Amino acid sequence: MSVSSVDKRVREHGIRLFREKFGKIVKNILENKPPVLLIPKRTLSNTIYDEKNKMLLLGPEYLRRSFFDMNEAKKFMQTMLMASIIYDALVNNEYPTIRDIYYRGKHTIRVKKKGMRMEEENTWDKQSESDSVIRDIEVYLGILREELLILSKEKGKVVGNMRIRSGDDVIDLSRMGHGAYSIEPTPDLIEFLDVDAEFVLVVEKDAVFQQLHRYGFWKKYKAILITSAGQPDRATRRFVRRLNDELGLPVYILADSDPYGWYIYSVFKIGSITLSYESERLATPAARFIGVNMTDVFGTSILNINKLKKKLPPDIVEAISKLPPKKPYLSERERRNYIIKAKPKDVERAIELCGYDVADACLGNVRDEKIRKAIRGKEGIPGYPWFRKPEWIRELCIFFHTLAKLEIEAIASKGLRFLADKYIPQKIETGDWIT
Amino acid sequence: MSVSSVDKRVREHGIRLFREKFGKIVKNILENKPPVLLIPKRTLSNTIYDEKNKMLLLGPEYLRRSFFDMNEAKKFMQTMLMASIIYDALVNNEYPTIRDIYYRGKHTIRVKKKGMRMEEENTWDKQSESDSVIRDIEVYLGILREELLILSKEKGKVVGNMRIRSGDDVIDLSRMGHGAYSIEPTPDLIEFLDVDAEFVLVVEKDAVFQQLHRYGFWKKYKAILITSAGQPDRATRRFVRRLNDELGLPVYILADSDPYGWYIYSVFKIGSITLSYESERLATPAARFIGVNMTDVFGTSILNINKLKKKLPPDIVEAISKLPPKKPYLSERERRNYIIKAKPKDVERAIELCGYDVADACLGNVRDEKIRKAIRGKEGIPGYPWFRKPEWIRELCIFFHTLAKLEIEAIASKGLRFLADKYIPQKIETGDWIT
Repeated sequence: MSVSSVDKRVREHGIRLFREKFGKIVKNILENKPPVLLIPKRTLSNTIYDEKNKMLLLGPEYLRRSFFDMNEAKKFMQTMLMASIIYDALVNNEYPTIRDIYYRGKHTIRVKKKGMRMEEENTWDKQSESDSVIRDIEVYLGILREELLILSKEKGKVVGNMRIRSGDDVIDLSRMGHGAYSIEPTPDLIEFLDVDAEFVLVVEKDAVFQQLHRYGFWKKYKAILITSAGQPDRATRRFVRRLNDELGLPVYILADSDPYGWYIYSVFKIGSITLSYESERLATPAARFIGVNMTDVFGTSILNINKLKKKLPPDIVEAISKLPPKKPYLSERERRNYIIKAKPKDVERAIELCGYDVADACLGNVRDEKIRKAIRGKEGIPGYPWFRKPEWIRELCIFFHTLAKLEIEAIASKGLRFLADKYIPQKIETGDWIT
Repeated sequence: MSVSSVDKRVREHGIRLFREKFGKIVKNILENKPPVLLIPKRTLSNTIYDEKNKMLLLGPEYLRRSFFDMNEAKKFMQTMLMASIIYDALVNNEYPTIRDIYYRGKHTIRVKKKGMRMEEENTWDKQSESDSVIRDIEVYLGILREELLILSKEKGKVVGNMRIRSGDDVIDLSRMGHGAYSIEPTPDLIEFLDVDAEFVLVVEKDAVFQQLHRYGFWKKYKAILITSAGQPDRATRRFVRRLNDELGLPVYILADSDPYGWYIYSVFKIGSITLSYESERLATPAARFIGVNMTDVFGTSILNINKLKKKLPPDIVEAISKLPPKKPYLSERERRNYIIKAKPKDVERAIELCGYDVADACLGNVRDEKIRKAIRGKEGIPGYPWFRKPEWIRELCIFFHTLAKLEIEAIASKGLRFLADKYIPQKIETGDWIT
């Protein structure tokens, strides 16, 4: 076997952790005590937004998973089954994926309940079930699955003036030709060797990454250039976080000017609200949204502050009115050609991000019945705290007002030179980004 | 600008080609002759399956696109507009994507028809329209868009014992650590330097690629390991083709045992039937499907040859009955746990691949109404010639008979060692693959 020495070390650490944390359960059983697992609760109600550190954290609640509790017995069995699968994989030099772990554990148990005939029950049916058990193991052990050498699909790519050690190799990320380095699924095992860069630019779209790379953007502007190729996976998020955390590099996110692009930013910055335990390791709270902004498309004069006063809290309107005004990067004609009409799904997602009141305050007279339907019944939605900033509310307000969205490619179509040598550098230089 | 010297050469070649081929039109106009473009027809009726070379080719038909033909004028305008956009991008050191080309050209033309009032018409509305015009330019110039430095999203990754030159860099694909080399969108510009490998293994799924890579599969078995991460893009296909063509390496495709996986194989092998002009450059007719096979899952004894005789041509049944019998790799119990029920969409796609008669001959008594609906009205479908081989018909027959499918991960769940050290090497060694 020609696996790396790094993996050997990680494997040993994982094995030790399992023996320590699950050894207790075995000990209980041997001592005739009822086996019980205490696992941090991964529920929304036990999720806390830490305003100071701008991070989602798990709260103090634990759940007791007891084998002798009829309602918990199946979950207990699933957790122990999963633990044994992952432990076996560690010991046997395997690199399972979450998909094959699902298959490894999937089988039928025959149960005979008292006075009943034989019944069959599956250990788990869908992968969503086994994935959830993997998450329980992660929070129980206080480790990410990647450090147990559970691999997954990985889309993130990087180029830039830095060298890294991965496995037993040293890789020069400035010598990738026209291609790029595809980040490993276990980015915690990467060692940063030397870095000569001033910032990190994460591009949502692979094709735009290819353009900027080919143009030599990262050489010219001393950037580490990354693409998440759409919705970022865990490895890309962890890699970006480490660049920010350990090397102190500012991180800029370039995404489409639409709720999907803003959501991608949100995933980099905070993570998923239902997976808060990951956030502490994967999120980059200091990430900056560099564009494309609605204000880059329409400028700020499109906004009617007086109208906002009717439905938004005065302090928010006040704060918005004090933001520096912006001129659009696009001409009237470009705007007409490039803009895409928002879909009902976009409107729904935008409300989730910044709250119903912003939609209510900013929407004009909506004639499209589907859009109206998308708004109905959303009254209670408060929005995420990190989108309740005047800068973001201004962006979202323009979105609701115009019901328009715009792709990065529309900016690139003004010329790669415009995107690479004007738009991005100017926005960085003038601090025209949102955090 | 720090672009590579390779790109400079390609750019000059593209510019020359445009001047030569479109210069004629300009000359016509200057000489007061009606401007006409003669473009190879990209229709299904002008697509030929070359049985000898196992390739789709464009036939001899051309279409005349004349500016003075009212029905052709808009198409003519679109073609010239597209030519000017691409030419401008070449001259201005741009790297456009098909998406931003769409934006570059999208605008409204105001037309006044005789006796009518002013009307507005868009150059194009959807990207599918502009993409189609890019294809016209490709066949007109006899070049792939990548060689005009039109970039696109690229998912393919590679590791293995070889060095390549890309741009101005030399990259050692055996020194990628736990990561991988992400293939450039213009793989014709890659230079193969030295290669020490005996075959190419293309894995449909990125996560399985990660597992095999981490396990050291490519070192142990002297393989070039590639993933297409799902449906292969053009760059990955071209890269694989070049490895086969120029280096003489056999290419094995490892995909799910389902119609989607077989289709991925088909795209590598032949290409899309509606994009036959690409096929000549992108397809790898000698590509071998190494698995997962339905016969790996069920063996061959499940097949009832007598039943087939009722509905399939005797020569096909005869050929199938002469194929070597196979035992399954899975036990009865594993099969029960791993198998997934086919969906109506799977059945539809399977009929497209190998023809209605195979479905008709092999389906049992189908109770699922949705599946029955998927079969109805498909009587005429002949299947693709390259799937009308006894080996493939046997595979598809088992699929229709069982209405089951299986993922690579199910094989990997038997242990990575089983996949890497038994399944794949044994199948290669015994020639247990389909071409």
